[in-house]
Amino acid sequence: MLRLFHFNKLSILPSKASNFLPQTPISISKTIYNRSQMGSFSTSSSSKLLFRQLFEKESSTYTYLLADSSHPHKPALLIDPVDKTVDRDLSLIKELGLKLVYAMNTHVHADHVTGTGLIKSKVSDVKSVISKASSAKADLYVEQGDKIWFGDLFLEVRATPGHTLGCITYVTGDASDQPQPRLAFTGDALLIRGCGRTDFQGGSSEQLYKSVHSQIFTLPEDTLLYPAHDYKGFSVSTVGEELQYNPRLTKDEETFKNIMANLNLSYPKMIDVAVPANLVCGIQSKES
Amino acid sequence: MLRLFHFNKLSILPSKASNFLPQTPISISKTIYNRSQMGSFSTSSSSKLLFRQLFEKESSTYTYLLADSSHPHKPALLIDPVDKTVDRDLSLIKELGLKLVYAMNTHVHADHVTGTGLIKSKVSDVKSVISKASSAKADLYVEQGDKIWFGDLFLEVRATPGHTLGCITYVTGDASDQPQPRLAFTGDALLIRGCGRTDFQGGSSEQLYKSVHSQIFTLPEDTLLYPAHDYKGFSVSTVGEELQYNPRLTKDEETFKNIMANLNLSYPKMIDVAVPANLVCGIQSKES
Repeated sequence: MLRLFHFNKLSILPSKASNFLPQTPISISKTIYNRSQMGSFSTSSSSKLLFRQLFEKESSTYTYLLADSSHPHKPALLIDPVDKTVDRDLSLIKELGLKLVYAMNTHVHADHVTGTGLIKSKVSDVKSVISKASSAKADLYVEQGDKIWFGDLFLEVRATPGHTLGCITYVTGDASDQPQPRLAFTGDALLIRGCGRTDFQGGSSEQLYKSVHSQIFTLPEDTLLYPAHDYKGFSVSTVGEELQYNPRLTKDEETFKNIMANLNLSYPKMIDVAVPANLVCGIQSKES
Repeated sequence: MLRLFHFNKLSILPSKASNFLPQTPISISKTIYNRSQMGSFSTSSSSKLLFRQLFEKESSTYTYLLADSSHPHKPALLIDPVDKTVDRDLSLIKELGLKLVYAMNTHVHADHVTGTGLIKSKVSDVKSVISKASSAKADLYVEQGDKIWFGDLFLEVRATPGHTLGCITYVTGDASDQPQPRLAFTGDALLIRGCGRTDFQGGSSEQLYKSVHSQIFTLPEDTLLYPAHDYKGFSVSTVGEELQYNPRLTKDEETFKNIMANLNLSYPKMIDVAVPANLVCGIQSKES
């Protein structure tokens, strides 16, 4: 199933998750503004991805800000915002003159409270996004093959369960007017030289192995991989690198399952607080 | 004075700082290898900058890895390596198939011990680089206007004293075959929405103000700014952003000096260990 979320007028978007219906793509004005003065990825067309990687030190979480800085409205989205750094993120978005449209999660996190609910309470018209399979509340539910448009750029949704049942990977579009190389936001499915644990929240090492090999390792080798966490100070990897050097996922499936079954990790210290909160958008929002 | 360090055969480089003499540029083979599968900045020519930002959590220090991944030798350099993360950095360099040529510092750090000495003890032929004005030991001393070549790419040296007397900023080249937008590695001279303190190591708020305004704020507004530290989870800024939003350096000089004179910062906890060590390349190397 392929659905398209196209940013134009926010009022056309459903206000509640229960009302969600597939959207009809809407044509976007092609008025081109001057090139912005912000860190960005150019595309072969006039569209331009503004991209920022932001770090929350306590949980070692990366939050990603993406925007179409060439679009008149400069629509933006946040992937995996953290409650504690919401003010930092919103301040940056304001300074850069962006219009935040989506606050998205790759999955229901067990190690920090999502910032989506808090963001919705502070910025009107922002829609929370999560996978349908996550069973969490949100304004919009996505699944395999969906496209999430912001201006003339889009993210493609790939279902990558295994760390949790509802994990998804967001990948920038496969088209000549989309960023090259592509960027993939893998959540905890694939970490740099690692992967997320598979012993909670519907996790399955067998499923994670299949997800990474079928949905991430099949992307072009120069695809930039941006995970939800890094604990060693790495900021980015590539499909080519992980295909060659990931110490777990380069193994055959049986060896991988054996590795994952014998990690002997301690009980996640935040899980009993974070998961119930994240199932309802960080409990900051009563609606979603 | 403009000097050129050109990577070709390492044996042509001086082995000791005291022997340093200006180098004659050496032409480089233009054989182009296949595009690598690593995160990179493309240039308008065949050269390609491989770029990685690496983080050391304890001192919130960013180390930068740059390489010409299109060059047959894949020559690489590290800016501001930290002793504690040397093994991580060298492992990554090995995995990416790079040849480390230079281990460089933006200044004599007071908050962590540099990794340059340790790197030199582990990898042969690596040259340490620091500013002449720093009074620290190194294999190569650089100053305003020098160019540091790695393959067909180069960094330009800009003197940006004020945080310390010997602070320099490394900026990617201003030429059509160099990365666009340009990247500036500002050390502690300019931080994201901040700047380094000016009350130790020959610091001077007056000098810092002049340095930033004359050497960094004059760069194109889309120049990406990569500082030596960030404490709030930001990874990059731009000249345009800091010109508009830096809470200190957007002020007039007198106000800036007043701000810097009244920061009431505590004594740097690592300074008595780090500075003596960093003056001799992290004391890991007896030679430099």
